[in-house]
Amino acid sequence: MTDLPLTTLTRVRRGAHHQVTDRAALYDVIDGALYATLAIVRDDRPIALPVGIGRDGDDLLVHGSTGSDFFRRIAAGAPVCVTVTHLMGLKYARSLFDSSMRYRCAVVHGVASVVRPEEKEAALLALSEHLMPGRSADVRPMTSREIAATMVLRIPLAEASVKDNAGSLVEVDDDGEDRRVWAGMLPLRVVAGEPVTSAQTVAGVAVPESVRRAARRIQESGTA
Amino acid sequence: MTDLPLTTLTRVRRGAHHQVTDRAALYDVIDGALYATLAIVRDDRPIALPVGIGRDGDDLLVHGSTGSDFFRRIAAGAPVCVTVTHLMGLKYARSLFDSSMRYRCAVVHGVASVVRPEEKEAALLALSEHLMPGRSADVRPMTSREIAATMVLRIPLAEASVKDNAGSLVEVDDDGEDRRVWAGMLPLRVVAGEPVTSAQTVAGVAVPESVRRAARRIQESGTA
Repeated sequence: MTDLPLTTLTRVRRGAHHQVTDRAALYDVIDGALYATLAIVRDDRPIALPVGIGRDGDDLLVHGSTGSDFFRRIAAGAPVCVTVTHLMGLKYARSLFDSSMRYRCAVVHGVASVVRPEEKEAALLALSEHLMPGRSADVRPMTSREIAATMVLRIPLAEASVKDNAGSLVEVDDDGEDRRVWAGMLPLRVVAGEPVTSAQTVAGVAVPESVRRAARRIQESGTA
Repeated sequence: MTDLPLTTLTRVRRGAHHQVTDRAALYDVIDGALYATLAIVRDDRPIALPVGIGRDGDDLLVHGSTGSDFFRRIAAGAPVCVTVTHLMGLKYARSLFDSSMRYRCAVVHGVASVVRPEEKEAALLALSEHLMPGRSADVRPMTSREIAATMVLRIPLAEASVKDNAGSLVEVDDDGEDRRVWAGMLPLRVVAGEPVTSAQTVAGVAVPESVRRAARRIQESGTA
């Protein structure tokens, strides 16, 4: 895989030593995320909303209603910024100034292209596989009406930056801070609870393996 | 408290029945969050980055380095969009089309004002109290140099929208779907792990009550 390019948009300006240009790190951040914050410019103002995401090779996938003004603007070529953040912990330094958060974050810049009708079902299945792996085999196929009502957008993972400050310490050797003050990390993770069966599901129908698998994926990565 | 106003920017366009205009709901989403995605327009493009947040009454607080181009643009009056998302679960419907996520989300629009030097220390303590409650009493006071190096911005919580789809079902009575297919919810929550003491902390220094309290807050809300 090629490294992520450093451009005006992707060169991290603050905390640059935490920038990671390994493309695999970008895919790892995205694959461990169920949603991203998708930002566009509308009437000279920023507007940023959470959206479910998927990945198909070197493209990020998002989907929305064909009736959505937000998605229509993106389909029409409005530049997007897609931000994925995994908060991994709170870093308690010996001063408030040096305290911070531990996180992994990806920021993708680009212009989306609309997935063509003949490729839409495959793209929707890729999204479904990302969000609810194996679920498509549990349920009926999508109808052509459902497919038509959904817009799928492809955003190339070409101009993107990743920041990961996991390696940074809460202390340095000679910082002059009082080491009798506790310093450390409060780790944070996302966990999945026990699946809740809906009231109308026929009695005795077991929680599918696909749902257990989604729960395990989250348990293992600690992210969603 | 007054309700949140419905304006061109805050009226939810998709899934409008999930919009909540109760101001307390906005504060609840913000108070349960350690960070937000902060979006601005730069050179006609959106740029959105994660930032730590706090709240002081009817204002959202964010802070950054005085040397940050991103924060300088905001200080200079660039309109912002602040998005806070709590992903609460995956909703497994009986079709992929009806499947979705359970979430609570706040979107704040506005222009920030720079906190004046004489109010900066109090604002930084409010931020610290939001992110690491009680921690300021554990550590040395901030120095004037540290305070000078930090920019604190106040964003009025005047034009904001909240969306909460917790109440929506994964099924409706007469949707014609096969009820022998399992439907339900996979709940997700953020949890805090056991605090990790840094290597340079003097042996025998206990994890402070403030850190335990932060962990309990996250445990109770399930959000961060």
